[in-house]
Amino acid sequence: MSKPLKFYYDLMSQPARALYMFLKLNQIPHEQCVVNIGRGEHLTDEYEKNINRFKKIPAIIDNDFKLSESIAIYRYLASKHKIADSWYPEDSKKRARVDEYLEWQHLNTRLGCSLYFMTTWLLPVLMGQKVSEEKVEQAKTQMENALDIITNVWLKDKPFIVGNEITVADIVAATEIEQLVVTNYNPYEGRPKLKAWIESVRSKTNPHYDDAHKMIYRVASRNKPKL
Amino acid sequence: MSKPLKFYYDLMSQPARALYMFLKLNQIPHEQCVVNIGRGEHLTDEYEKNINRFKKIPAIIDNDFKLSESIAIYRYLASKHKIADSWYPEDSKKRARVDEYLEWQHLNTRLGCSLYFMTTWLLPVLMGQKVSEEKVEQAKTQMENALDIITNVWLKDKPFIVGNEITVADIVAATEIEQLVVTNYNPYEGRPKLKAWIESVRSKTNPHYDDAHKMIYRVASRNKPKL
Repeated sequence: MSKPLKFYYDLMSQPARALYMFLKLNQIPHEQCVVNIGRGEHLTDEYEKNINRFKKIPAIIDNDFKLSESIAIYRYLASKHKIADSWYPEDSKKRARVDEYLEWQHLNTRLGCSLYFMTTWLLPVLMGQKVSEEKVEQAKTQMENALDIITNVWLKDKPFIVGNEITVADIVAATEIEQLVVTNYNPYEGRPKLKAWIESVRSKTNPHYDDAHKMIYRVASRNKPKL
Repeated sequence: MSKPLKFYYDLMSQPARALYMFLKLNQIPHEQCVVNIGRGEHLTDEYEKNINRFKKIPAIIDNDFKLSESIAIYRYLASKHKIADSWYPEDSKKRARVDEYLEWQHLNTRLGCSLYFMTTWLLPVLMGQKVSEEKVEQAKTQMENALDIITNVWLKDKPFIVGNEITVADIVAATEIEQLVVTNYNPYEGRPKLKAWIESVRSKTNPHYDDAHKMIYRVASRNKPKL
């Protein structure tokens, strides 16, 4: 007997939000299993032993097959489920172009945006820790470099990251950039193309986009860092 | 008329060395195009325009199709060429396990080892820049965390990263870790399992492993950081 796919996530995580949207957009049947990372539920021995040996989210269990790393999960799901080809194309060149972004983003969009989020919000505002100005500046430089390359290279001459259609690359990028709403940095200032792009991603994926970001928007509305 | 695959690389780069080995191990016909990153040949307008818009190596051009990001390149090559299934398995679960490492490594093995290499060798020894002790310690912590997880989680109960056979995950991991030979850090001290693993990877892939690392070994023999 086939068991439903189990999806372990917390909407406070960017990769978890992207995967949450992907599962809904592609109507992949799954059981939602919330793991409260704020309370450290991903760090328990039980979670490590039974769900994800790396103690991270998101993770899935598909009929006893445990898998982590959201990008690996997209590929696995695309091989097992019928999803619209445009999300993660079968054609080897088109797929390679999506893969190129998915690999590029780790040390660019993800590293830059999440370091900035950590050094300007998570550590100082949420956890009351002191963060040196040098660290914030370094994170800001990395983040701005990634945002500029997305705007000027990836989005050059096309509305979405790899072409005329939305792909998994766009939701992976958008969830990292949208999270900056919690900080005092406006990624769209001076980058109108980036703004037009994220609005297209949102309109193509709603109501799931707003649903996935509801916690982040709530945090942003009441917990901005002091200027 | 089909043109040969063009491979742009410099053996001073870890991902380039891994891809260099992969192309040879799988006898994929290609034309070697050396790009001297020490001289900034990847930063020219011509390289950006004609080869890789991200100004990085490695990169390929396959019949006018330009692709960067080594992990995306492995997937693309596996879809176009006949390679031994064990390197990057067709089976969706086995492939997902290889993918899980390939995605995990960016912000773990790669980030940790290359930050340590940069802060203890590239910047201070090669470029004569001052690096704060705090930065070195931070890089060391990230690197050691990755090395411990590879040793204790990935290599738990099996000789290679994802099982009993060598896969692309092993060469991607090995090229990052082998590069530490240039630094004063010995990743195998206290990690005999990691030492046994890298020796297996080397013996399974030689003569290509030593060939790919010849420049790194030369640098290591004459240019160690002073203790």
